[in-house]
Amino acid sequence: MKRRKFNATLALGSSGIALTSNIPMACAIDTKQNKKKLGIALVGLGQYSTYQLAPALQDTEHCYLAGVVTGTPEKEQIWADKYNLPKANIYDYDNFDTIKDNDAIDIVYVVLPNSMHADFSIRAARAGKHVICEKPMAMNVEECDAIMAACKKEGVKLGMGYRLHSEPYTQEVKRFVREKTFGNVKYISADAAYHSTTDPDQWRLNKSLSGGGALVNMGVYAIQSVIYGTGENPISVSAQEYSTRPDYFKDTDETITAQFEFESGAVGNIMTSHNANVNKLYASCDQGWFELNPANNYGPLKGRTSEGTKISFPHESQQKLQMDDFAKHILFNAPNLAPGEMGKRDMMIVEAIYRSIAEGGKKQELHFEPEYGFSK
Amino acid sequence: MKRRKFNATLALGSSGIALTSNIPMACAIDTKQNKKKLGIALVGLGQYSTYQLAPALQDTEHCYLAGVVTGTPEKEQIWADKYNLPKANIYDYDNFDTIKDNDAIDIVYVVLPNSMHADFSIRAARAGKHVICEKPMAMNVEECDAIMAACKKEGVKLGMGYRLHSEPYTQEVKRFVREKTFGNVKYISADAAYHSTTDPDQWRLNKSLSGGGALVNMGVYAIQSVIYGTGENPISVSAQEYSTRPDYFKDTDETITAQFEFESGAVGNIMTSHNANVNKLYASCDQGWFELNPANNYGPLKGRTSEGTKISFPHESQQKLQMDDFAKHILFNAPNLAPGEMGKRDMMIVEAIYRSIAEGGKKQELHFEPEYGFSK
Repeated sequence: MKRRKFNATLALGSSGIALTSNIPMACAIDTKQNKKKLGIALVGLGQYSTYQLAPALQDTEHCYLAGVVTGTPEKEQIWADKYNLPKANIYDYDNFDTIKDNDAIDIVYVVLPNSMHADFSIRAARAGKHVICEKPMAMNVEECDAIMAACKKEGVKLGMGYRLHSEPYTQEVKRFVREKTFGNVKYISADAAYHSTTDPDQWRLNKSLSGGGALVNMGVYAIQSVIYGTGENPISVSAQEYSTRPDYFKDTDETITAQFEFESGAVGNIMTSHNANVNKLYASCDQGWFELNPANNYGPLKGRTSEGTKISFPHESQQKLQMDDFAKHILFNAPNLAPGEMGKRDMMIVEAIYRSIAEGGKKQELHFEPEYGFSK
Repeated sequence: MKRRKFNATLALGSSGIALTSNIPMACAIDTKQNKKKLGIALVGLGQYSTYQLAPALQDTEHCYLAGVVTGTPEKEQIWADKYNLPKANIYDYDNFDTIKDNDAIDIVYVVLPNSMHADFSIRAARAGKHVICEKPMAMNVEECDAIMAACKKEGVKLGMGYRLHSEPYTQEVKRFVREKTFGNVKYISADAAYHSTTDPDQWRLNKSLSGGGALVNMGVYAIQSVIYGTGENPISVSAQEYSTRPDYFKDTDETITAQFEFESGAVGNIMTSHNANVNKLYASCDQGWFELNPANNYGPLKGRTSEGTKISFPHESQQKLQMDDFAKHILFNAPNLAPGEMGKRDMMIVEAIYRSIAEGGKKQELHFEPEYGFSK
């Protein structure tokens, strides 16, 4: 009874505003309202927001760029002009919490250095906004728990910035696994790496801001790959670290390899690095194989299978698909393709990998419920 | 002076026989003689001799199937008939040492279970015959040393049955590395595995005959791949083992992963298994990548590069090329593409991998001279 009353109020408000403006109204959990597009505020206007998310938000169907939050005053006017953003929808880090009063913002997308993910995700939740948190979810599992608890308490949705779950090549891999197109996966190899040479002062190479090096950046893709590439959460991991350019990689990991065991008996093998260019996924099944290469860049991805067929889909912005999927989750109760549990699970694996390295490669047991952090 | 006299004698003998028979004469180190083809005796008439080596020896240019050595009496007549072998060139394991008196046999190719490699390679050397020893070279490094010492003492040549060094896809990979076609190799991934389900009593699954499981069988290809794929001997290795079918793999390893470091900073990552089908090599360089898939089966192999080109060569029997290369090494002093040192080096790595596994994945340092066991 309470919920129906709340919805009715919202519907009234919604139609009232919809008549006078193209800008959709406040955050709303109701799926029956008139509202078409949810307003997203990007927090952190670095490369990813600038060159991927903001352009993608020009094409999204269920959300749009409604505001920004930046710690760099010069960027405010630039973004206001470029995307025709009202001044009222532009925040800095200090006045960010007042976003709770801004009905034009439904979703806050946290695109900050990793050390700021937890703080801003939690503040966004407390402001009553749905949250998309870029990967890696946070600096550690404890922070992941805090983010999830805040979102739960405030009744807002939480999604990870795992764009690949929304794009068709990865969805095809998940389908192969789910439908056993090539039988059971016996072995999966996934490498995610790029060769970093520029700007030694970038935040990714500063552990206090990033929480780690290649592993928490590209490594998360490789971890994701072996999981959706087998359809299982791992039961153990072992890992090794390599260093050849300590002057450049002063306090973050340069290259890491890790090996996974799965309940089914499948074995996973990953490499991640800031010192080489590799971007692929290969799965050997008992009736064939499939691979993506590239497997996790911004696309177009490419793939092929043991049947001699190419995996091929029309290219669309992965970020567009991802943000629309999250908006559909809010608007239409569509599945959350990358829930907070998925981000936390991956952070638990990241921590286990670092622990294995610290213990000279010793195997670390992992304990997840079979469906924990999964999306089908 | 002594050597010239010896050669002159041989040349005389050679021409004498060459007039009366198509069958070439005895083992000879002289490169100036008339002799065209060296006689090979296959020791051990299992699947590999039956379906690969013997057929290949019908097409070889510098050697031919001159005899066989078998522990199975029924096979003697079958092989004699099929390949028109004189009775005098057919031996069993007991009378094998009398092969020293048989001038028709120049090379003894040891294709026996691994536990018999050292014994028969050493006996072949003592019989004054050149030796090809199948991979893995022996049960342990000590046996490798004994084989090499015997061949050195007797002045006979020793080659490993590493067919890939003679085939064009692998040679192209070695050329890419040597000429830095795609720049420096930063990362190499090599997986060599097949799914074994038949005959649990096969010698490969019996440790006292094989010395190990997947690692000493397919794993040797993966080890080879990361070495010729980087052009370097490794400086360390770490390894892990996985078991899911202990009832079938009673005392041999089912699946092993291992990671290599190289002086250049390159990282190598391998998986080998008797429980999955994978056969590939992928190298990421600072200016591109190349891959073979399949990389080490009997061919035709396939390959491609980051430039969008397919690596493609006409298919020939790899075993034919390999045995001809070894014959050319003897006849014309051509390079030994797979010397005993290469087999010993790989056995040292195999032992280090088993040691790492026994020590819970602890990294094992490796010490090789840069050129040890190499062929360019």
